Amino acid sequence: MEEGLPNLLLKALGQRIRALRTEQGYSQEAFADKCGVHRTFMGTIERGESNLSFQNIHKVAATLGISLSDLFLNLERRAQERPGQADANKLKKRAGESKSR
Amino acid sequence: MEEGLPNLLLKALGQRIRALRTEQGYSQEAFADKCGVHRTFMGTIERGESNLSFQNIHKVAATLGISLSDLFLNLERRAQERPGQADANKLKKRAGESKSR
Repeated sequence: MEEGLPNLLLKALGQRIRALRTEQGYSQEAFADKCGVHRTFMGTIERGESNLSFQNIHKVAATLGISLSDLFLNLERRAQERPGQADANKLKKRAGESKSR
Repeated sequence: MEEGLPNLLLKALGQRIRALRTEQGYSQEAFADKCGVHRTFMGTIERGESNLSFQNIHKVAATLGISLSDLFLNLERRAQERPGQADANKLKKRAGESKSR
């Protein structure tokens, strides 16, 4: 995919979903099952490869127990951050935090 | 469509898009053109009949000049409001306000 703003936003959304899902202690498979979507589809969502629909966005937010507005909080800013390492570091940090609870 | 929460949310989103679009003085056709979607498709979005994709949600928010988080602000509460009249009244009020500018 080209790296236009919509795709950067999809990547940022996928990274946010992965971070929140990890914080809540779900494996990707368990989370996909709870959302009612296929496990491989959840993989494409988290990698920002799926132009997911509103109804699937709703399933993700509802399963995480957050509002749609919260799910999209600061997404534009997140999409403009240096892709990759910054988010990878946050994910590691958050994964570590959730393990230590 | 059945009136489950996802569909109530889609209706609330459509009503919000229509209200914001009207506030900014766009006709539905002009707004659809600026978003780069078909005019009849914009009609289905505003009536909550389209399970629109993330990329189309982004087009709408970008054209309105608001963040995704703002577009979805309080959507869950809006979806729980008495459907129809409450929103119709707000739309009339907003349409009147935008005319008087």
